[in-house]
Amino acid sequence: MASATPVLKDELDIVIPTIRNLDFLEMWRPFFQPYHLIIVQDGDPSKTIKVPQGFDYELYNRNDINRILGPKASCISFKDSACRCFGYMVSKKKYIYTIDDDCFVAKDPSGKEINALEQHIKNLLSPSTPFFFNTLYDPYREGTDFVRGYPFSLREGVPTAVSHGLWLNIPDYDAPTQLVKPLERNTRYVDAVMTVPKGTLFPMCGMNLGFNRELIGPAMYFGLMGDGQPIGRYDDMWAGWCMKVICDHLGLGVKTGLPYIWHSKASNPFVNLKKEYKGIYWQEELIPFFQSVTIPKDCTTVQKCYLELAKQVKAKLGKVDDYFNKLADAMVTWIEAWDELNPSSAASAEVPNGPKK
Amino acid sequence: MASATPVLKDELDIVIPTIRNLDFLEMWRPFFQPYHLIIVQDGDPSKTIKVPQGFDYELYNRNDINRILGPKASCISFKDSACRCFGYMVSKKKYIYTIDDDCFVAKDPSGKEINALEQHIKNLLSPSTPFFFNTLYDPYREGTDFVRGYPFSLREGVPTAVSHGLWLNIPDYDAPTQLVKPLERNTRYVDAVMTVPKGTLFPMCGMNLGFNRELIGPAMYFGLMGDGQPIGRYDDMWAGWCMKVICDHLGLGVKTGLPYIWHSKASNPFVNLKKEYKGIYWQEELIPFFQSVTIPKDCTTVQKCYLELAKQVKAKLGKVDDYFNKLADAMVTWIEAWDELNPSSAASAEVPNGPKK
Repeated sequence: MASATPVLKDELDIVIPTIRNLDFLEMWRPFFQPYHLIIVQDGDPSKTIKVPQGFDYELYNRNDINRILGPKASCISFKDSACRCFGYMVSKKKYIYTIDDDCFVAKDPSGKEINALEQHIKNLLSPSTPFFFNTLYDPYREGTDFVRGYPFSLREGVPTAVSHGLWLNIPDYDAPTQLVKPLERNTRYVDAVMTVPKGTLFPMCGMNLGFNRELIGPAMYFGLMGDGQPIGRYDDMWAGWCMKVICDHLGLGVKTGLPYIWHSKASNPFVNLKKEYKGIYWQEELIPFFQSVTIPKDCTTVQKCYLELAKQVKAKLGKVDDYFNKLADAMVTWIEAWDELNPSSAASAEVPNGPKK
Repeated sequence: MASATPVLKDELDIVIPTIRNLDFLEMWRPFFQPYHLIIVQDGDPSKTIKVPQGFDYELYNRNDINRILGPKASCISFKDSACRCFGYMVSKKKYIYTIDDDCFVAKDPSGKEINALEQHIKNLLSPSTPFFFNTLYDPYREGTDFVRGYPFSLREGVPTAVSHGLWLNIPDYDAPTQLVKPLERNTRYVDAVMTVPKGTLFPMCGMNLGFNRELIGPAMYFGLMGDGQPIGRYDDMWAGWCMKVICDHLGLGVKTGLPYIWHSKASNPFVNLKKEYKGIYWQEELIPFFQSVTIPKDCTTVQKCYLELAKQVKAKLGKVDDYFNKLADAMVTWIEAWDELNPSSAASAEVPNGPKK
């Protein structure tokens, strides 16, 4: 299996949000060069972003986003890496891999450079097991299986929608933890991939993330962050919570663990604190909300689920802060824009095995 | 922390079910010798079990069990390692570690011998996080923490009731998987401990298991297996499912992962198939039962929860097979016997933070 992993060269786009020249791609060249890149340029659109020679890419700056989406461009964040989700929308591929431009190739304990993308593809092409926990982790990996006591009826698993990868070196901490532990580095290589169980929420980080765009794309909206918004650094979290409750409803799987990338530099904790502080306390209301959300049975597509979620966000979180009314509207706009750019997905998009409750 | 882990010498018993001389203890001597052992001799009580010199132990054979429990001895399995739970009942300590006699000391990737007991103690003394998944695994381990997006209100965690350790070499497979993959060995050392999330069931293996007897002891009943019973090899599974729904109800945590032991020899898959085959299909009814069990709010002790569970087993699983009526009665007998041998635990035993739903 290891050497036979399909590369999905023509079925996967790599989405990179950035404000600088993409020198980091040099290190990724052996792994990324066969793929098409979608670069979402954040900030000043008059700036020129240099992309190393030999990469096949399309680049969108704010002017492009405004031109393509018109008034619906309001749902795409500005001056925040949340803008990356525009790339998900314009892609025409089945799979997306998204990575931050301060992430480099990590090494496994044997010193071998890790092909992160290959591991994400493995994760996405093998099923997930959200209904029962396997103590030897991903049962579909080489050298392992389901353990004694794992129900046989659940061993086929369900399709995997999301593969969440991790980070060596700088861990993905919030500002308070960064301030308290400025020197902490993640040096522990945990050789595991596992399914996040049904009914369990997790903090999804957008730094090193793969997903099946056909299965879950419309739920991967990174919200309203950055310029003109009261929060930042909750874009991927928001997407993760929305995505997870929809995957749980539709019977899709979410994996976390391998692959690792090397996260090179910590962002400024003082700046982060400013971006995060409302998120930190709003979150105490958001988590119970997402933990108790139920999506009606007749929501059989990701789009229908997402619009239902937007409705509930407005009804239940609007009173936490008016920001959530704006966010709920933006969620609707996002789906409208998605369907405009992806007319076939709007029409079909019934998930093969339908909702499972 | 690593070197400062309390050894709990006077607060922990090691419970070993066996039918043979305990030569395997030689290898564990550096780690186990400070502790008291409770040996539960299975099978022919006239046989003498040799215990290597220098270990402090008490040994119970079937005659002892019958004498101590009288007619209630019927709840303790015979000719099955399920008999180990008698050791949990007669212990007077706060913590139990139980291990099989074909389990040896494993080595970590650096070649160092693993003190499994020390890692279980670390797991049991640090909190669990059942309400939200941390992508960097146990946030209380050295060198790691809660990641960005983890709600601050949940970072104190909950008391840990169970620490489930894993196995290198022979994996804990059921008979069909053993038959299909006779040569598969577990060589992957996954350097992680994690909480099994609330609402998620897992297959608990009794080979290498630590728990807090004060918090969860009465739920660790290994059921009716072996001699005179229609199944075997589901003793630990049964205990794990009962224990998990009670921990979820009472707001207690269950961890799995490190430490590894070296599991030396696979049991005979043909014999196992005979023991397991009813379990394999009953399990398809058991899992939905345990997934949907709800325990009433007024069940505030492990004993009350367990008796409630026994009632529901009889009501809902009795129709699957008459065996479950017998098992439900044995569950009640087990609690009566437990309370008889542990009168103080019967009286008190309110869990500090009470039920959490």
